[in-house]
Amino acid sequence: MTDPAIRTATADDWSAMWPIFRDTVAAGETYPYPEDLTPEQASALWMERPPGLTVVLEEDGRILGTAKLGPNRPARGDHVGTASFMVDPGARGRGVGRRLGEWVVAWHCQAGFRGIQFNAVVETNTAAVALWKALGFVIVGTVPGAFRSHTHGYVGLHVMYLDLTQVVSA
Amino acid sequence: MTDPAIRTATADDWSAMWPIFRDTVAAGETYPYPEDLTPEQASALWMERPPGLTVVLEEDGRILGTAKLGPNRPARGDHVGTASFMVDPGARGRGVGRRLGEWVVAWHCQAGFRGIQFNAVVETNTAAVALWKALGFVIVGTVPGAFRSHTHGYVGLHVMYLDLTQVVSA
Repeated sequence: MTDPAIRTATADDWSAMWPIFRDTVAAGETYPYPEDLTPEQASALWMERPPGLTVVLEEDGRILGTAKLGPNRPARGDHVGTASFMVDPGARGRGVGRRLGEWVVAWHCQAGFRGIQFNAVVETNTAAVALWKALGFVIVGTVPGAFRSHTHGYVGLHVMYLDLTQVVSA
Repeated sequence: MTDPAIRTATADDWSAMWPIFRDTVAAGETYPYPEDLTPEQASALWMERPPGLTVVLEEDGRILGTAKLGPNRPARGDHVGTASFMVDPGARGRGVGRRLGEWVVAWHCQAGFRGIQFNAVVETNTAAVALWKALGFVIVGTVPGAFRSHTHGYVGLHVMYLDLTQVVSA
């Protein structure tokens, strides 16, 4: 929660976030969103409302990445969170994803969640898989062929999980 | 698709489906839906629109169970389906769940899906787990403690998968 570049996204941010969303989806490697969404439709999908939230990482007036997060399920499942991430393709390799990931983990810890579940990490997105493992996530299982990658065809979707009760009790 | 008791649900069916939904959720053992939903809110959650659908199993004018089904994800994930099931607590042990499950598998086969993913099968719901295994589903992985069971406390949620490409190529 201490990264000064990360803050809650506002409606005014969307014009800068939309190209990141559009280009990430158009690449066809990481998200199963339709590729013909309007900016308004995409905003409705990405801009979370409470109890979730959407954040951006902004440096020198430029938005380099975004994350949305919150409970993965309602009611009897709302003690486990989830999150999604997008980094500006022009800002890759600069640690933007890691900073957003660390922020998301800290947010869930402080909010008292017992864990964080990623429902669908594309197995060929090896940079993301390696990053989440570095943050302590484990692969719970892989649904075979559940994603049609633009480059690789049918590839698996990992379910990944970070147990925050271990962190708390340590 | 040949079970004559199973048909698409209509808005007129909801008054008979609502007690099944309400009592299933209130039991607190299988679904993470809020327990204070109005009938209208519950209908919005359970009655699917295309490309998904909701069906009922009706015998002698009485609705004994219901299922909702359709693509688990949009776009690059829409070749894998999913489904959810509820059986009238007064009609348990009569094969209603199995008949709905078999119908759902047949529907996905005929519609050309490559597989069916159940995202969150409560591990203490042993009757359901055994039924899905009997229909060919495997446990891909289990997210530990992701459901707060009324009786058992924190229990795991299984991700289960049925590979329909094996069936087609057999």
